[in-house]
Amino acid sequence: MRLRNVKNAKEIVEKSAYVVHDSTSHKGKFAEEVFFNNNPIHLEIGMGKGNFLIAMAKKYPHLNFVGVERYESVVCRALEKLEEEHLLNLKILVMDASSLGEVFASEIETIYLNFSDPWPKKRHAKRRLTSLAFLPIYDAICKEEKIIVQKTDNVSLFESSIVSLSIYGYKIEDISLSLADTDKPNCLTEYEAKFMEQGIKINYLYARKK
Amino acid sequence: MRLRNVKNAKEIVEKSAYVVHDSTSHKGKFAEEVFFNNNPIHLEIGMGKGNFLIAMAKKYPHLNFVGVERYESVVCRALEKLEEEHLLNLKILVMDASSLGEVFASEIETIYLNFSDPWPKKRHAKRRLTSLAFLPIYDAICKEEKIIVQKTDNVSLFESSIVSLSIYGYKIEDISLSLADTDKPNCLTEYEAKFMEQGIKINYLYARKK
Repeated sequence: MRLRNVKNAKEIVEKSAYVVHDSTSHKGKFAEEVFFNNNPIHLEIGMGKGNFLIAMAKKYPHLNFVGVERYESVVCRALEKLEEEHLLNLKILVMDASSLGEVFASEIETIYLNFSDPWPKKRHAKRRLTSLAFLPIYDAICKEEKIIVQKTDNVSLFESSIVSLSIYGYKIEDISLSLADTDKPNCLTEYEAKFMEQGIKINYLYARKK
Repeated sequence: MRLRNVKNAKEIVEKSAYVVHDSTSHKGKFAEEVFFNNNPIHLEIGMGKGNFLIAMAKKYPHLNFVGVERYESVVCRALEKLEEEHLLNLKILVMDASSLGEVFASEIETIYLNFSDPWPKKRHAKRRLTSLAFLPIYDAICKEEKIIVQKTDNVSLFESSIVSLSIYGYKIEDISLSLADTDKPNCLTEYEAKFMEQGIKINYLYARKK
């Protein structure tokens, strides 16, 4: 995600009702206390400007969507879009994915990893969101059955994701090396729309672990 | 594999010392009785004209290699190449892969599936060599730890292989969507050499099941 400096980003984020500010105080009761329902929670780690999450929240009103994003300036871009919406099933966490265990406990149904940072250098491999450093965190925050849905144009990240998910006990139940050539239902991210215009192939996988 | 009619194919195959004729009479004792040693057996299903298997047999003299091929006319092409060789660690079975359970019992270490027929139509999916119809056969013929190594240019076959191997309990321990761009040791098949010239990407996976 390219960062554009947004004036008053901190202030805008602090004022937004879409952003959960007391995130660590709802552990294990997030749906109930934040969404006031018992619907399943789907989490996007690295929500960027929010196109995917907003489209999903509109498409699936009976699911709760939580977007995680590290940078306030990026969250502001999503908030700009959300101003025109009134989505009760979408919330945002401004935080690092490595701390998700402080926010959730056995309550996430599905994790989406869209166009995550590929961290191509071997010495940074642990920072990839599908590395063996992150998978135990997902174990802790997900329900007994864990579902990870990944999209990426980056072949090396995709290869390393398949291996680490597989070694960690996930079954790759669906996969495509060219998502645009399939008829799978798909909500586009900002990146994805651009990549599709350029004819860049999108890799997709759906992995499950019990 | 495009078939070229070879004159006297049947006769040539019958006379060859590389071809195992009494294949079903060594079940469980194949290495001992056919290779006269106790070295691990590596099996290529669909050996075609034999380039891969011959190169592997030369490269790894302490492994036994068995090639399976359905068509006598294709086997003849491999035998032509083998005439110039004197490989004690290579044998050929002229048979259909679906009957491998009659030949081996818990004795294969690694199965190679190189550029297998993709059977693209859904109603033929069971004929793919990585389908759930074939995986139980491999369970029966392989040692406790099963290893499948696949190479293919066909994206749909590769995708369906990842899913069926994964669902069946294999872990994808290594994968590449562009084998030529890696430094993995690799013996080329006939197809592969041509594909590489044309810049067609070769998909590769190494899967293991305990």
